Amino acid sequence: MSQENSPPVIGFSPRVRKSPFFDATRRYGCTAYTVYNHMFMPTAYGDPVDDYWRLANDVAICDVAVERQVEIAGPDAFDLVRMLTPRNLETMKVGQCKYVLLTDENGGIVNDPVLLRLADDRFWLSLADSDVLLWAKGVAHGSGMDVEIAEPDVSPLMIQGPKAAGLARDLFGDWVDELKYFWFREVELDGMPLLVARTGYSSERAYELYLRDGRFGDCLWERVVEAGRPYNIGPATPSQISRIEAGLLSYGADMTLNENPFELGLDRLVDLEQDVDFVGKAALRRIAADGVRRRMAGVEIHGPELPEVNEEPWPVEKDGRPVGKVTSCVHSPRLEKNIGFALLEAPLAELGTELTLKASFGDVAMTVVPMPFLKSA
Amino acid sequence: MSQENSPPVIGFSPRVRKSPFFDATRRYGCTAYTVYNHMFMPTAYGDPVDDYWRLANDVAICDVAVERQVEIAGPDAFDLVRMLTPRNLETMKVGQCKYVLLTDENGGIVNDPVLLRLADDRFWLSLADSDVLLWAKGVAHGSGMDVEIAEPDVSPLMIQGPKAAGLARDLFGDWVDELKYFWFREVELDGMPLLVARTGYSSERAYELYLRDGRFGDCLWERVVEAGRPYNIGPATPSQISRIEAGLLSYGADMTLNENPFELGLDRLVDLEQDVDFVGKAALRRIAADGVRRRMAGVEIHGPELPEVNEEPWPVEKDGRPVGKVTSCVHSPRLEKNIGFALLEAPLAELGTELTLKASFGDVAMTVVPMPFLKSA
Repeated sequence: MSQENSPPVIGFSPRVRKSPFFDATRRYGCTAYTVYNHMFMPTAYGDPVDDYWRLANDVAICDVAVERQVEIAGPDAFDLVRMLTPRNLETMKVGQCKYVLLTDENGGIVNDPVLLRLADDRFWLSLADSDVLLWAKGVAHGSGMDVEIAEPDVSPLMIQGPKAAGLARDLFGDWVDELKYFWFREVELDGMPLLVARTGYSSERAYELYLRDGRFGDCLWERVVEAGRPYNIGPATPSQISRIEAGLLSYGADMTLNENPFELGLDRLVDLEQDVDFVGKAALRRIAADGVRRRMAGVEIHGPELPEVNEEPWPVEKDGRPVGKVTSCVHSPRLEKNIGFALLEAPLAELGTELTLKASFGDVAMTVVPMPFLKSA
Repeated sequence: MSQENSPPVIGFSPRVRKSPFFDATRRYGCTAYTVYNHMFMPTAYGDPVDDYWRLANDVAICDVAVERQVEIAGPDAFDLVRMLTPRNLETMKVGQCKYVLLTDENGGIVNDPVLLRLADDRFWLSLADSDVLLWAKGVAHGSGMDVEIAEPDVSPLMIQGPKAAGLARDLFGDWVDELKYFWFREVELDGMPLLVARTGYSSERAYELYLRDGRFGDCLWERVVEAGRPYNIGPATPSQISRIEAGLLSYGADMTLNENPFELGLDRLVDLEQDVDFVGKAALRRIAADGVRRRMAGVEIHGPELPEVNEEPWPVEKDGRPVGKVTSCVHSPRLEKNIGFALLEAPLAELGTELTLKASFGDVAMTVVPMPFLKSA
């Protein structure tokens, strides 16, 4: 029982896949991994605050190959995709990305992918951490829809930070400057097949390079690092600090099958009036009519810098009564504040509500504040 | 780039859940974790060979709470369960467990859970690592079936090893001696609600104690350890060595959506003649008629003890030609041999075939041998 205080290592085994960029992440000093969509994902290259400043000041290269793609193709592909999400996709163009929620029959969140339209009849769902391949296949089963659903060999590599724009221009040419937020283009780089999307996971400028042949993983990584030297590029992980500053929720932590879009304040991603019978529509209609009991709120956690962040939800109380939980929290070096997300009894999600966080290290006062904490660059 | 050789740690975060036994596993010296079904799973308490001998000689306590349960209940529950698996369940009784495969529309393996029948109209699928909750909900969607599908608060704790029988008798009473292999009983232990099943993941005697209230995790662990002292109980992880000796495949490593039951030699788990239109039936009929191109085989890998085991599939060649891959391998201290599973071109899966393994450390000769390597106790 002596090893309680040494940090446990991650067990590698053939049950969990390595990303095409895995060797590079090891070589560049990755010190911690988690597992996401049955693959290893880097979570640290040393001090997360260093990664954060690189992302805030320069440009970071991040292995996000765990964002697996579910490809839905065929004559009924658009119908199936529309059945999977409450968002209205009527006007979605080829070349466009959309942030969407997938909901189950109760309106609970199955996943919050980025949807890409590659052709009229071909889509990718670029996933958060749940088996949407099984979900989509299951929903399609017995529907009589003429679709092919599979996971293609596609592995995103992200560059993000204020200098990502210059780096992308050097890599791909001037057209990248014209690429609008949440649009993509299919290209080749030194013979490597890519799709370049202007999407990310922070308030900073970002591009995701969807590598369409895993054999080139190491080659693409080194090509990007080489081109990134003038921009002080370095490896990083998707920054928890940056994504919380930007008000971006993390599937599994901040939302699960037990939360619905309205509780999360994501009403803009639900269209109950559209003429599509998406999964969860009846339940979401009911919830919209009845109103929600819980609401996600931004919170500022008072006192000095948090000595540790939560590894599980931390309870929240109001006058000694349990009223919710903090799902994610972090110290923001830029804002010089502790910030987080709290899922609270709906009336308490009003701005200015004062609450008590029951943190692992003791009680701390906190206040409901506006989200996002930081506007997009 | 200096940290290439230090073992990376596991990143803890609220995105991945902790088991009710997590604190106990930390306290008892767990040194490595992986993630399985979106939860942390212990993979080492030091030397895996020590764990192996404990399991071979005494009794081990293993946190297997990652075996999440999908509960399917309601008037059409049996119909839905039968639709999810090619195994014929016609004669399945309440109180019985069955090892089943779930297949997709192509006959590929979605999961290989243990199915438990709690009542005529209530079932649990005790899962390997994939989101069967989404799969089952998806298949049920639009089927018109009257079922409730959810994940209950149930967390299995396993005791296994030759002394597990004595320990189970001390904990639960003499009736446990009468509990047949793959049967279960619902009981209370000091007020803790449990379901005790005679199931495991090795050739040794084993019981899984399905804890039905996560708040009692630490309490159950300590109760079992206390009762296990006379039997030299100690913490361990599901042993890779033991499960390979027993010929037990691991989902994600040895089988995935890309393999079908016939390729895996699991024909006994498929009944194409039954009057049930299970998912994948048409595809499996076609595969049965055409024959398979690949087959899983047991292999003995020659030479000295393997210096390392595979972290990804290792290629296999015959006379310089690629013919398949080793999906799992290990050194068996009891058999004093290196053993493993190889997915091979079907004609080469014949006993006695000699092959070359392209291991990370060099080429090694290997031979197809009978499975399992060790018979059940």
